[in-house]
Amino acid sequence: MNAAILKGKLTGVGTGPGDPELLTLKAVRSITEADVIAFFCKKGSTGNGRAIVEAHIRPGTLELPLVYPVTVETHKDETEYKAPIADFFDKSAEDIATLLDAGKNVVVLSEGDPLFYGSYMHLHVRLEKRYHAEVVAGVTAMSGCWSMTGMPLVQGDDILSVLPGTLSEEKLTERLQNTDGAVIMKVGRNLPKIRRALASAGKLSGALYVERGTMANGAAQKLEERDESPAPYFSIVLVPGWTTRPAEEFIGDGK
Amino acid sequence: MNAAILKGKLTGVGTGPGDPELLTLKAVRSITEADVIAFFCKKGSTGNGRAIVEAHIRPGTLELPLVYPVTVETHKDETEYKAPIADFFDKSAEDIATLLDAGKNVVVLSEGDPLFYGSYMHLHVRLEKRYHAEVVAGVTAMSGCWSMTGMPLVQGDDILSVLPGTLSEEKLTERLQNTDGAVIMKVGRNLPKIRRALASAGKLSGALYVERGTMANGAAQKLEERDESPAPYFSIVLVPGWTTRPAEEFIGDGK
Ligand SMILES: C[S@@+](CC[C@H](N)C(=O)[O-])C[C@H]1O[C@@H](n2cnc3c(N)ncnc32)[C@H](O)[C@@H]1O
Ligand SMILES: C[S@@+](CC[C@H](N)C(=O)[O-])C[C@H]1O[C@@H](n2cnc3c(N)ncnc32)[C@H](O)[C@@H]1O
Repeated sequence: MNAAILKGKLTGVGTGPGDPELLTLKAVRSITEADVIAFFCKKGSTGNGRAIVEAHIRPGTLELPLVYPVTVETHKDETEYKAPIADFFDKSAEDIATLLDAGKNVVVLSEGDPLFYGSYMHLHVRLEKRYHAEVVAGVTAMSGCWSMTGMPLVQGDDILSVLPGTLSEEKLTERLQNTDGAVIMKVGRNLPKIRRALASAGKLSGALYVERGTMANGAAQKLEERDESPAPYFSIVLVPGWTTRPAEEFIGDGK
Repeated sequence: MNAAILKGKLTGVGTGPGDPELLTLKAVRSITEADVIAFFCKKGSTGNGRAIVEAHIRPGTLELPLVYPVTVETHKDETEYKAPIADFFDKSAEDIATLLDAGKNVVVLSEGDPLFYGSYMHLHVRLEKRYHAEVVAGVTAMSGCWSMTGMPLVQGDDILSVLPGTLSEEKLTERLQNTDGAVIMKVGRNLPKIRRALASAGKLSGALYVERGTMANGAAQKLEERDESPAPYFSIVLVPGWTTRPAEEFIGDGK
């Protein structure tokens, strides 16, 4: 009979928004100490999270790509998308469980902060009762983006609303009217709708558009001046909770 | 005549929520390279931000404590508080300007993320036109706190509302009713009001209370089970955007 194997530890590690220098010391240590590095990616790509941490992966570390079965962006029918994605998270969790059972310490990379709209949470809720699971907080995309522009969104007693760009135009407009600052995530093909909603809410002129924030090719501009071509996956809209300062004051020279 | 002195650079550096390992690599580099480290603090204390980065300050680095003139918590009258605090930010900005003019690179420490409800932004808006100013994004208190508990607040198309605990009970209740996930900052003496608002909104049972998140003496518990004693300055309430999982599942063993 084999001696009982001590189960491995699961760690969800935030990689920050893109700049490899925005990794935390704890993220670097977790990655350096890992037996296995798992990361989400699309078919045919190694994933953005993996690229951010590249320099810190010890040679010989096992890598486990978790390849999304479908691209979120191309699926419009919610129900058609939900079943395969749940199966994918089930299967990914079981692959990781097998490694944890074998005593391996597994790090799952998560862009930005793991529990802030991140895929990692779906593994966490499936595994945290069976294994020792830890989350290493990361710098969110919104923090990276507003820091890059130097524009503060909220202060004092302001309310900040984080809104997915997938909301209906009506709902987006209403939410934008009833908040101080706002961040709109998941911009992509929702860009024209987001622009209309901001205009209806009277908040278009202050809004900034940021794509690939903190990455080498990141850029920021006034949303009003952004053309109508589809936005990339890594794009966000920032709406300040004040109206007294013109937005162009805050478009800095990147990081 | 003296040769013209090259002006120094201003950098607002996020220190993260408390755990010194949640500093980013960029924060560490900025601190190591600084000529001057400035930090906000209360009279008679060196400040929490200063303590978080302690290990990285080079011997001989100049330190500039920016001592708050009044304690926010003890002031109830808004107008009475606003004038001295604006003067304080003016004066702090001018002290820093003098150092920048002398060619010194000045780092201003900011707990969590600098532009997320942080005091640093008041220096940034006063100085960014006159000097080269950069912001190094940090891990926010909310990310540190939900990571410590392991409880995801929002996923997919959820809306997240960040609410100051200083809002009226009526407004808090309404906001809590009309959101998926919520984070309530500035808990302190607002704790009983926050609890009542959550109860009215039907969201008390899922809420977690976290104090000194990611710090050595940090703790998390169900808000329902927290006693009525005043909460410390470093405390937050987390409200998940779902109702199907009981909160106790998520109270982990800290970091
Ligand atoms: C599934 S969410 C993940 C958020 C991430 N966990 C975080 O903490 O920010 C993905 C969305 O984040 C935003 N995003 C992520 N990285 C970004 C970047 N570097 N620049 C701009 N937006 C980004 C985009 O809006 C994208 O649709
Ligand atoms: C002026 S705001 C600054 C927020 C900070 N800039 C950030 O990025 O999170 C201060 C509030 O943050 C929250 N906070 C900061 N650090 C915390 C910690 N370690 N644990 C719990 N709450 C914290 C408290 O609600 C406090 O009232």
